[in-house]
Amino acid sequence: MIIILKQNANQAKVEKLKEDLIRRGFKLHLSQGTEASLIGLIGDTSSIHEDWLKAIDVVEDVKRIREPYKKASRSMHPEDSVIDVCGTKIGGGNFQVIAGPCSIETREQITEVALDVKRSGAHLLRGGAFKPRTSPYAFQGLHEQGLELLLDAKRASGLPVVTEIMSTEHLPLFEDVDVIQVGARNMQNFELLKELGKLNKPILLKRGLANTLDELLMSAEYILAGGNENVILCERGIRTFETSTRNTLEISAIPVLKQKTHLPVIVDPSHASGIRSLVEPLSLAAIAAGANGLIIEVHNNPEKALCDGAQSLTPPMFDDLMRKINRSTEFFRSL
Amino acid sequence: MIIILKQNANQAKVEKLKEDLIRRGFKLHLSQGTEASLIGLIGDTSSIHEDWLKAIDVVEDVKRIREPYKKASRSMHPEDSVIDVCGTKIGGGNFQVIAGPCSIETREQITEVALDVKRSGAHLLRGGAFKPRTSPYAFQGLHEQGLELLLDAKRASGLPVVTEIMSTEHLPLFEDVDVIQVGARNMQNFELLKELGKLNKPILLKRGLANTLDELLMSAEYILAGGNENVILCERGIRTFETSTRNTLEISAIPVLKQKTHLPVIVDPSHASGIRSLVEPLSLAAIAAGANGLIIEVHNNPEKALCDGAQSLTPPMFDDLMRKINRSTEFFRSL
Amino acid sequence: MIIILKQNANQAKVEKLKEDLIRRGFKLHLSQGTEASLIGLIGDTSSIHEDWLKAIDVVEDVKRIREPYKKASRSMHPEDSVIDVCGTKIGGGNFQVIAGPCSIETREQITEVALDVKRSGAHLLRGGAFKPRTSPYAFQGLHEQGLELLLDAKRASGLPVVTEIMSTEHLPLFEDVDVIQVGARNMQNFELLKELGKLNKPILLKRGLANTLDELLMSAEYILAGGNENVILCERGIRTFETSTRNTLEISAIPVLKQKTHLPVIVDPSHASGIRSLVEPLSLAAIAAGANGLIIEVHNNPEKALCDGAQSLTPPMFDDLMRKINRSTEFFRSL
Amino acid sequence: MIIILKQNANQAKVEKLKEDLIRRGFKLHLSQGTEASLIGLIGDTSSIHEDWLKAIDVVEDVKRIREPYKKASRSMHPEDSVIDVCGTKIGGGNFQVIAGPCSIETREQITEVALDVKRSGAHLLRGGAFKPRTSPYAFQGLHEQGLELLLDAKRASGLPVVTEIMSTEHLPLFEDVDVIQVGARNMQNFELLKELGKLNKPILLKRGLANTLDELLMSAEYILAGGNENVILCERGIRTFETSTRNTLEISAIPVLKQKTHLPVIVDPSHASGIRSLVEPLSLAAIAAGANGLIIEVHNNPEKALCDGAQSLTPPMFDDLMRKINRSTEFFRSL
Repeated sequence: MIIILKQNANQAKVEKLKEDLIRRGFKLHLSQGTEASLIGLIGDTSSIHEDWLKAIDVVEDVKRIREPYKKASRSMHPEDSVIDVCGTKIGGGNFQVIAGPCSIETREQITEVALDVKRSGAHLLRGGAFKPRTSPYAFQGLHEQGLELLLDAKRASGLPVVTEIMSTEHLPLFEDVDVIQVGARNMQNFELLKELGKLNKPILLKRGLANTLDELLMSAEYILAGGNENVILCERGIRTFETSTRNTLEISAIPVLKQKTHLPVIVDPSHASGIRSLVEPLSLAAIAAGANGLIIEVHNNPEKALCDGAQSLTPPMFDDLMRKINRSTEFFRSL
Repeated sequence: MIIILKQNANQAKVEKLKEDLIRRGFKLHLSQGTEASLIGLIGDTSSIHEDWLKAIDVVEDVKRIREPYKKASRSMHPEDSVIDVCGTKIGGGNFQVIAGPCSIETREQITEVALDVKRSGAHLLRGGAFKPRTSPYAFQGLHEQGLELLLDAKRASGLPVVTEIMSTEHLPLFEDVDVIQVGARNMQNFELLKELGKLNKPILLKRGLANTLDELLMSAEYILAGGNENVILCERGIRTFETSTRNTLEISAIPVLKQKTHLPVIVDPSHASGIRSLVEPLSLAAIAAGANGLIIEVHNNPEKALCDGAQSLTPPMFDDLMRKINRSTEFFRSL
Repeated sequence: MIIILKQNANQAKVEKLKEDLIRRGFKLHLSQGTEASLIGLIGDTSSIHEDWLKAIDVVEDVKRIREPYKKASRSMHPEDSVIDVCGTKIGGGNFQVIAGPCSIETREQITEVALDVKRSGAHLLRGGAFKPRTSPYAFQGLHEQGLELLLDAKRASGLPVVTEIMSTEHLPLFEDVDVIQVGARNMQNFELLKELGKLNKPILLKRGLANTLDELLMSAEYILAGGNENVILCERGIRTFETSTRNTLEISAIPVLKQKTHLPVIVDPSHASGIRSLVEPLSLAAIAAGANGLIIEVHNNPEKALCDGAQSLTPPMFDDLMRKINRSTEFFRSL
Repeated sequence: MIIILKQNANQAKVEKLKEDLIRRGFKLHLSQGTEASLIGLIGDTSSIHEDWLKAIDVVEDVKRIREPYKKASRSMHPEDSVIDVCGTKIGGGNFQVIAGPCSIETREQITEVALDVKRSGAHLLRGGAFKPRTSPYAFQGLHEQGLELLLDAKRASGLPVVTEIMSTEHLPLFEDVDVIQVGARNMQNFELLKELGKLNKPILLKRGLANTLDELLMSAEYILAGGNENVILCERGIRTFETSTRNTLEISAIPVLKQKTHLPVIVDPSHASGIRSLVEPLSLAAIAAGANGLIIEVHNNPEKALCDGAQSLTPPMFDDLMRKINRSTEFFRSL
């Protein structure tokens, strides 16, 4: 970390700052330039917040040299992490597809979709029981009953299940869930992240609409720091000025994250675009860019879906896409 | 709500859609243009999600005519709402300043700041006990103990207190808190909003970093729909490409919100900028644009603050600013 | 186009508006709902600006049903346009790679790179003679002399050349240039677009940093409306809050544009990321998403490049990438 | 400027880099930390582009300590610049209002508006003859004839005039124009900026929709570096995800620019919002935040305006606003 001092900074205050830093265990490296005077901090700066330093009168700016996350960093853990979900491996050389409806509506619906997507080759089943909806008047999910229907579909299909949690209070209901999803709007719900850090269960952490990749990794760090090393990251589109899609899929997030972290990275083309016809090109692009998997919305009757119908594939569309996904992952493995 | 049909849409499917809409209680208004065929829905569309319609094969697009919120809308409630906090009125012709440190650190600190800001004319005391921090390694607040110290400062100063909640599980600890703050990162923590809707206590709802004004009002609607009408909105800066400030204060949010809603709107210039020297110009701009109040960070020793020191005013700076705030609100009242 | 009238609009003024619209040749379709009264305009609305209508007292809002561009629209021109550049075809089922240095520096440099990229299989040569640089103190390109060196490299390699124009005044210098590039910062330099519309030469139109896809198509419309139908669109990243890449490549722009327009769409992974190691994954993702080509920066000595060295590939890197590009385009053609 | 070296960087290459930097005239300050090895450059780094350094193999990152502009920097020129426009002073303690229609339509229109806004107390007249329009089918301005009508209105009213230039080729037509405006879309039309740098005439430089404040200052630097010191900056709203206003007025741009530069800063509330009813609150907020002036659209018949009618004030509205502006500038001067 480098501290840039103000020009004409009060020398006594600068000395006081230096003493303070030494007392905190840092070695200092001083540099006097024509442009500025700098103090380089030598030591572990991950516990220091830039903001504390910026508040000090003689400090003009602070520049961090190393990333503020540790356990999530590839420099600390060079090999890819591989997360095991009931025997299905996510990360490393593996590629997995999670599929299912936005929300669980009836036993028939979720079981039918589960069997359909399994037949097409999906490896995990998704389905929402607790739905974060912008409007209080929109369908909010079947809650506890929805989770039961999802577990029924798990038993019927043999597919492990992924479903979203919205509050720490609901944790006891998620005991038999295989992967707990943290939605984009809760990426910085730090109290929730801390609780999930105490579990030994895979967490699918979605990037927030306006969060940088470093912030995503800091949220992962909350879970990792708690002792739970089973974190799967998910790029699902960010909010920009462009309005022709619901969100903007940041495709470069995939290779950038793969450089920064050892955690698996999957992509959600359904929420990223909000448009059914874009799911295929975005899925193939994600594979080409190096993603470890996809999470795709499939509904047996999108026109009757209680949410997100416009972005859901029908089972035949998904079946066709799975064929292309399988051929593409095979192709890129050989490239 | 207007449904735009695809060109060459299957006529049988269009008829089916129309029947479905009539069954849901809408009157239809049909329009056949050279550009497009439209169906206008006449009736209460707040329960319909555009997405359901967009999922239907024959539908090209859906355009909402009226805002999707009701209780928050000024058209439903033309006069300004005035929220009463222990006798202090927020909204309408009133202007209130909330001041205090980012986080509660010690009894001496919070009490000293409380007495200082009261002397300068602040009407409410702020202070964080549960702190949402990007890094798990940063100071997370004193939690329960922090709330106790805040209530001590309330008793010492007589100022009502505002503090942030981060999880529904902590609600029992907030019984004696006068205003519960929902932070930007929790603006769409819908489970939390639903719980707050059951209280009869003022809620300070901060706008999320990437949320539109309509989404802010939909989150307010969650609280209002639950029966709690005491919602105060807070503009605190949004995330944009500009990096010279921490966030971008959207000053036009004030007059736009005043047109859309009857709820009071206050501004947080400290978090919006992240820079101490910008707090004064942004505070005065907020008053000029019609805000109902300000929430300002004040610390008795910003250089030692455990968080957000760079944006905190010292008590003498705040005292000077309060004089300018008072003169400005008086001036604009007379303009 | 749909005009939403204000509630309680003055009836006489509404009548006046209707007469005015009828005089302009529109048929009107009126709709009286509980939510709002609407006027639907039936006729060609591409000459009407929403803004004119919004200025009228009784109008609350205006919603456009059809896109405001015509010649660029796929609905007017269902088959893909194929642009011919000295026999090389861009668009339709063809895939082309444009490669070369950011700026032309010396005869040896540009000729060497030209021969290198040709050997690797590139179809066109890029190189900048007029460089838009943020700083007036940065290298601004060799201008006229640079164009001459580029034409030398064209003669030496046989590759058609693409280079950027920055001002209409320089047009006479571009006579022997095969494709004229309009850079992102000039996407809405409308005077320049009008002049380019008078030529019969392919134009490579790059999307602006903060421009929507509809605005990109409106800028293409400027050129098309002038009579020049040889427009190639280029997605090169937009500006967002994310800072880990120079810009954010909007991968969904490719399939969205392919739906909206018949014009070819290519991708610039070098400027989109600004990072050499991201060029390969973004190139492959662009192919997977359906792009018609790529424009890639290659420099024979990136460490000595006068601009954009950090994102330039060396010739061996490019050679390796071209092999992967060729295999990938072949694969996706067969998918 | 600080160069952060890669961990395990090849030592011979590092030595080569150091020699190269010394040859370029820099003194080096080396620092070896546990986190990273750094090279601090001591000397004038404004001619070095970070990008050149980032392209070098052993370099991980580069951090600039001082701003890359010089003539625009307040550190080089501590007192406010005051620009003289025919005796009217802009900058320093002066506050000026520029008013007039979006586009010049007829002699009667522009002259009538000129006399109206003069009567209300405006100091300069604006009016567009060359109009940058998103659509080629929209009214593009009266061009040369429009400039003549504007000069007629100048003679009739005695007000100096401000009007936009769109191409260097039109420069000869602007000889009698008092202030030449560079629109947001041309902020990085560097060829145009260079030509304007050769004049001795005030330039009103509008911030681009997606440009940072540092980029705005670099564009000002183009003009200043050419020898023209008469640059007035204009904040006119940036593009964000929020759609309830046309753009997002960045109010903090005013105090931030005042810290960074000595140049005057004015605000355009009309384009920033696109909504007539927001012009007053945004104007007052701009004054409160320290702006040196305003540029406001006024039309004698907004409902018939050929462009931007929705954001134009009528002369009586403007008259009322001017009274409030005058009282507010007086108030803030005394605060």
